[in-house]
Amino acid sequence: MLKNRLTELLRIKYPIIQAPMAGGVTTSDLVAEASNHGGLGSIGAGYLSPVQLRNQIHELKTKTTNPFSVNLFVPPNVINMKENEIIKANQLLQPIREQFQLSDVTSDIPNLADIMKTFEEQIKVVIEEEVPICSFTFGIPTTEIIMELKQYNTILIGTATTVTEAIELEKVGMDVIVVQGCEAGGHRGNFIKSGEESLIGLMSLIPQVVDQISIPVIAAGGIMDGRGLMGSLCLGAKGVQMGTAFLTCEESGAHRLHKEAILQSNEEQAVLTRAFSGKWARGIHNKFISEMKDYEEQFPEFPVQNTLTQSIRKAASKQYNKEYMSLWAGQSARLARNETVESLITRVIKEASKIIEETKAW
Amino acid sequence: MLKNRLTELLRIKYPIIQAPMAGGVTTSDLVAEASNHGGLGSIGAGYLSPVQLRNQIHELKTKTTNPFSVNLFVPPNVINMKENEIIKANQLLQPIREQFQLSDVTSDIPNLADIMKTFEEQIKVVIEEEVPICSFTFGIPTTEIIMELKQYNTILIGTATTVTEAIELEKVGMDVIVVQGCEAGGHRGNFIKSGEESLIGLMSLIPQVVDQISIPVIAAGGIMDGRGLMGSLCLGAKGVQMGTAFLTCEESGAHRLHKEAILQSNEEQAVLTRAFSGKWARGIHNKFISEMKDYEEQFPEFPVQNTLTQSIRKAASKQYNKEYMSLWAGQSARLARNETVESLITRVIKEASKIIEETKAW
Repeated sequence: MLKNRLTELLRIKYPIIQAPMAGGVTTSDLVAEASNHGGLGSIGAGYLSPVQLRNQIHELKTKTTNPFSVNLFVPPNVINMKENEIIKANQLLQPIREQFQLSDVTSDIPNLADIMKTFEEQIKVVIEEEVPICSFTFGIPTTEIIMELKQYNTILIGTATTVTEAIELEKVGMDVIVVQGCEAGGHRGNFIKSGEESLIGLMSLIPQVVDQISIPVIAAGGIMDGRGLMGSLCLGAKGVQMGTAFLTCEESGAHRLHKEAILQSNEEQAVLTRAFSGKWARGIHNKFISEMKDYEEQFPEFPVQNTLTQSIRKAASKQYNKEYMSLWAGQSARLARNETVESLITRVIKEASKIIEETKAW
Repeated sequence: MLKNRLTELLRIKYPIIQAPMAGGVTTSDLVAEASNHGGLGSIGAGYLSPVQLRNQIHELKTKTTNPFSVNLFVPPNVINMKENEIIKANQLLQPIREQFQLSDVTSDIPNLADIMKTFEEQIKVVIEEEVPICSFTFGIPTTEIIMELKQYNTILIGTATTVTEAIELEKVGMDVIVVQGCEAGGHRGNFIKSGEESLIGLMSLIPQVVDQISIPVIAAGGIMDGRGLMGSLCLGAKGVQMGTAFLTCEESGAHRLHKEAILQSNEEQAVLTRAFSGKWARGIHNKFISEMKDYEEQFPEFPVQNTLTQSIRKAASKQYNKEYMSLWAGQSARLARNETVESLITRVIKEASKIIEETKAW
């Protein structure tokens, strides 16, 4: 058996990372089961307060003694608060708010100082709780933060959507890169260019990144089974990060309607939208996406738009109305199953082992 | 060694198809070398007159006795001749025509009857010349044509960009399906839905199609080397179709500037545009694409826009001005090399054989 630098580095049995999905999906049960069955569980902590994060880590530690990771959103350099964009967005959202009998326009738009403060406190929690692995999305943390984490031997994972982004992440000292293909569900992790230039399919992205950097690469986007795992390894990745596949698992905290929407969808229905958060993200098509379609380019940037739509998403979720929820999913949603984490990981590895033999044919 | 249904059916040694690129790329040397070295050479006959097609087949037969294929464009059901779109497009193109000192607006817009007639004559040539394999892009030929070709034992290959398209193609009797991922260079082969719904990455598309149909699948889009071949086989494809990788080969008829543009580009530069032909297609970004960017949705449909830009593309090509040529390329253009077809195929197979051993590690 040859060595795999990634599994050795992360001290996991199988090169399968449960993607850090924010917004309540990554329950302690989901994360613990992923880590307990040979993968790497990950807390999607982007929207967690430092206190919430610490509590979840405590809970998680009662459920697993294996390595796990915490994922954080890197704050933007600047928040573009364009008054006219906000007014326009509120006008568009108002009829939907009324439909849900939501009284008022959200006023609590976050400011950069608060976001930075939260991020620094999240980092403090990661260090104090001795989290072994910390991953980042939406950019590059400051040199100070990277140096501090390295001092505590935290393994650092960055997220890239292009070769340029991967090179930048390697330069600042990341230990591993997640490359996110255009197939991926949820938010795009691009931070240098936006739009089409950062929508690269994994068939193209993995080998090009692997050729240009020397640290291990994890592939993310549309990977659901042993075929995706083996395909990614052949393309040069050392492991895979799976989101949608874990989201529909029993242990995931995703809304029942979200899981059902994925289980009933096909590859054409997972579309890109900025309407929920101000950042491009892939999710199952619904009324909200189609009603906002013509205004995609005009919404305020993340996290402003995300705050503006928050009460709607919450109300929709409470009222079991999937037409106004963000139903994040990748382009392989059709391959999702409702099973336990243990069953998912066992199946993927079994399928992969079988494929190793079968692909020899031509 | 296990059996591969695709190589047996096509009577080729390796599951590598040289993509049928139209517009002069697929010289008889390129096609013959691909077939002579264990792959399947393909004539991109979409823009060839029946006489030109017959002549190329005759020439090809002096260079190889191995199987090869001919690719044809399925005519549209209707040509949308919207006068206002044509006027608008001509206004946009006029300054560029003047820049190239082209005297007149193209008047020779094709009509559907002529296109149908040409297509039927191309089919006649395929039958009379006993072409063993015929592939189709842009749709589904009529039942009559399919039945006629089957009577002569022609193996039929259809092109799909979604599961729905693949299912339709299997239903009408295709023997093999090429699935084109969003990574692919050149024209999109979608024929049921256009736009985002048909831009699926191969990591997602291959397994979903394979699960839904029973005939062999060939993966196309961003595949450049042994990694792409093995990745595709793991995902469930029985072979790969490579375009950009063959386009930069010595034997290819692509313009020198086109080859150079690919060899110097990266994954962010191969963008989608409708400006050249009226059909979405992926090519290296240049001045023409950026000048037309804001009008993407307004151009007349293929083949009308293609006719309107023809003189510009020809003049640009003659004058070695790559800014106004269609520089089709996939998202893996960075991995292209300038080598012979023999060297390309040998390298891909060598790389693939090595990967089979290496991917066992985790």
